Amino acid sequence: MGLEIERERLGFDYNDPVAVARQFERVKAEVLKYKDDPALIIWAIGNELNLDAKNPKVWDAVNDISKMIHQIDTNHLTTTPLAGFKQDLVRQVKTRAPDLDLLSFQMYADIVNLPRYLRESGWSGPYMVTEWGATGHWEVKKTDWSAPIENDSTTKADFYQKRFEAVIQADQKQCVGSYVFLWGHKQERTPTWYGMFLESGEEIAAVDVMQYLWTGAWPATRSPHLAGAWLDGKTAHQNIHLKLGESYPAKIQASDYSHNPLIYIWEVMEESTDLKTGGDFETKPKSLPGLVQNVKDGEIILKAPSKPGAYRLFAYVFDGKGHPAHVNIPFYVDQDKAASLSSLAPP
Amino acid sequence: MGLEIERERLGFDYNDPVAVARQFERVKAEVLKYKDDPALIIWAIGNELNLDAKNPKVWDAVNDISKMIHQIDTNHLTTTPLAGFKQDLVRQVKTRAPDLDLLSFQMYADIVNLPRYLRESGWSGPYMVTEWGATGHWEVKKTDWSAPIENDSTTKADFYQKRFEAVIQADQKQCVGSYVFLWGHKQERTPTWYGMFLESGEEIAAVDVMQYLWTGAWPATRSPHLAGAWLDGKTAHQNIHLKLGESYPAKIQASDYSHNPLIYIWEVMEESTDLKTGGDFETKPKSLPGLVQNVKDGEIILKAPSKPGAYRLFAYVFDGKGHPAHVNIPFYVDQDKAASLSSLAPP
Repeated sequence: MGLEIERERLGFDYNDPVAVARQFERVKAEVLKYKDDPALIIWAIGNELNLDAKNPKVWDAVNDISKMIHQIDTNHLTTTPLAGFKQDLVRQVKTRAPDLDLLSFQMYADIVNLPRYLRESGWSGPYMVTEWGATGHWEVKKTDWSAPIENDSTTKADFYQKRFEAVIQADQKQCVGSYVFLWGHKQERTPTWYGMFLESGEEIAAVDVMQYLWTGAWPATRSPHLAGAWLDGKTAHQNIHLKLGESYPAKIQASDYSHNPLIYIWEVMEESTDLKTGGDFETKPKSLPGLVQNVKDGEIILKAPSKPGAYRLFAYVFDGKGHPAHVNIPFYVDQDKAASLSSLAPP
Repeated sequence: MGLEIERERLGFDYNDPVAVARQFERVKAEVLKYKDDPALIIWAIGNELNLDAKNPKVWDAVNDISKMIHQIDTNHLTTTPLAGFKQDLVRQVKTRAPDLDLLSFQMYADIVNLPRYLRESGWSGPYMVTEWGATGHWEVKKTDWSAPIENDSTTKADFYQKRFEAVIQADQKQCVGSYVFLWGHKQERTPTWYGMFLESGEEIAAVDVMQYLWTGAWPATRSPHLAGAWLDGKTAHQNIHLKLGESYPAKIQASDYSHNPLIYIWEVMEESTDLKTGGDFETKPKSLPGLVQNVKDGEIILKAPSKPGAYRLFAYVFDGKGHPAHVNIPFYVDQDKAASLSSLAPP
C-alpha cells in the first residue's frame, strides 16, 4: 500500500517540525486503519520523494514512520520508492532511514544500468522495482521543436521484454519483485506514452509480452506488429515540417500475427503543453477533427492544420479482438513566411 | 547473374575508350556463355558502380552493355544495382542508361525512406532491392574511439522484420523482388555484422524472421532472445574504457523460446583495422586467448589485454539445435598514465 507522504517539490518543508509531526500522526492513523487488511502486501512510504528535492530530512521522517509501522504492525515490511538510482541518494537513504526493510527503484530506459548501480553503491540488500516500463519521455530524442519522440507499441513491447529479462528476471538474488508501469492508461506527454491499455480498455502489445514473461506462453491473440509510420514520407525522427493547410500522405505498416482484418483510426492532436513532472496529472490536449482523408488501409491524406504550431498524428490499429497497436508522429506546421511578410507590407 | 563491371573507385577510368571497349567484349563473351543457363534470372550489370565514383560515363558503358544483351538474349531483363538512393543519381541513370529494364537499390537502415525517395525522384518503374538487411556499419553510433556499435542478433532480427514489412512487402506495385543480405557470412568490420549465418554454419535469428516473412509461420526452433550485454556493468553505448590487465565482470542475458539449455562461448578480438568500402574483402582480426574466465552461464570475468588499444568482446549463445545468438561489445584498453610518466623519469 502506498502511504501518501508530502513532497518537497510540491511545496512541503521538511524543516517545519510541526508539519512533519502532523503528517506523522495522519500516516499513523492510516496504518492503524489498514494494517490488517488482507490485500496489504507491503507499506510503501511515499513515492519518489527524491524527485526535485534537496532536503535530506525527508528521510528522517520516512525512518520515523517506518519505526512507527514496525511497532504497530509486525506482519508487513516497509520500503520507499525512489525515482531513478543515484549512488549518493542510496547512501543517504541507507544512512538516514536504516529502519526500511528494503529499497524500491523506479527506472525506465536507465534500468539497464541497475546491476552496475547496485554494485557501485554497495547496496546488497533486497529491492523491488516498483515502476518500470516504456522509455521515459525524458530519455528519448526530441524533434527540433522539443517534442519527445514516442516509440510505437511494437517497439515498446520489445523494450518491456528486454528490460524484464535483462534486469528483473535476471536478478534472482536481490530483486524480490516488480510492478510493471502502467497497468492502465494516462495522459503524460501523450495519451499513449505509458499506458499498457488504451483509454477504451484494449490491451496493447506490452500486455502480450508480460503474459509471455509471466507464464512462458504468448497469448493466442497478439496485438498487430507495426513496422513503421511515415508522414510526408518521413519518420518521426526526421523533423517533419508542414505548410499551413497543405495536404500530405501518411502511412503506417501493420501486420497481424493472427491474420485478423485490421481497422485503422487516425487522430490529429495539438502537442501537449500541460507538462508536469513525476507523473502529476496532465490534461489531454485538444483533438482536431476533419483533417484526415482515408485513402486505403493504413494510408491517409493529412491536411495540415490552418494554425502554425506543434501537433501529433496518432494512428491506432484495431484487430477486432481487443488487441490494438498504436503509433504517433510529431509534426510542426510552420508559419507561412510569404503571408507574414506581406502582412508587413504597407496597405 | 552479376556481370563484373570495373569500378572507378578501384582505379578504372571510364574516359579511356580502349579499356571500356575491352570490357564490353569481355562481358559480351560472358553473356554469350551463360545466356541459356537455366539458373539465369536477370542480368545485373555491375554492382554499386556509383560508390565513390564521379564519372557519369560509367552509365553510358552500362547502357551499351544492356543494349548488347538485349540483342543477344531476348529472354532476360537487365538491371544495375545502386548503392543507396540519391535523386540525382537515379535521374542520371534514367537519362544515360534508358535501356535498363529495371533499377535495383541496395539500402540498409535508410531503406525506411525508399518510398519517399521513389516519389521525389519520379521513378515509377519497376525495381528490386538487391541488398537489404542489418543496419550498415556507416549508419550506427560509434564509440569515442570510432568503433561502430553492432546490434545484437535479436535486435537485428527485429530490424529485418520491420524493414521487410514496411518497405518491400508493402510495395506491391513497383517492387518486383528482393535479396536479403547476407545469406552466408563474411568479415566486414566484425565477423558477424552482415551474415545471417555464423562461420560455422548455424542460422541466427534473422533467418527465423525471414522464414516467418516468407511462409507466414515461425520455425519450430528459434534462436535465443538476447535482452542485453554488459561489460563492467555498461552497455556498448557507454564507451567502455578498461585498465591494462585488470579484471572486469561481463554478462549477457539470453532466453530460449524453446527452453533448450544454452551454451555460452566468449571471444576477445582486436578491433578490425582492415577497413574497406563496398564490401571488399577484409581480413578477420586477431583473436586473443586466455582472457576469459567463466563464472556461470552468461557471466564471465574478463582480464583486459596487456596492450593498450581497441578490442571487442564477442559472446555466442548456442541452443544445441543450430540456432545461435550473438552480440559484441567494443572496449578500449587505456594506456597506463602512471607507467608512461615513469618511463619518462631519469633512470
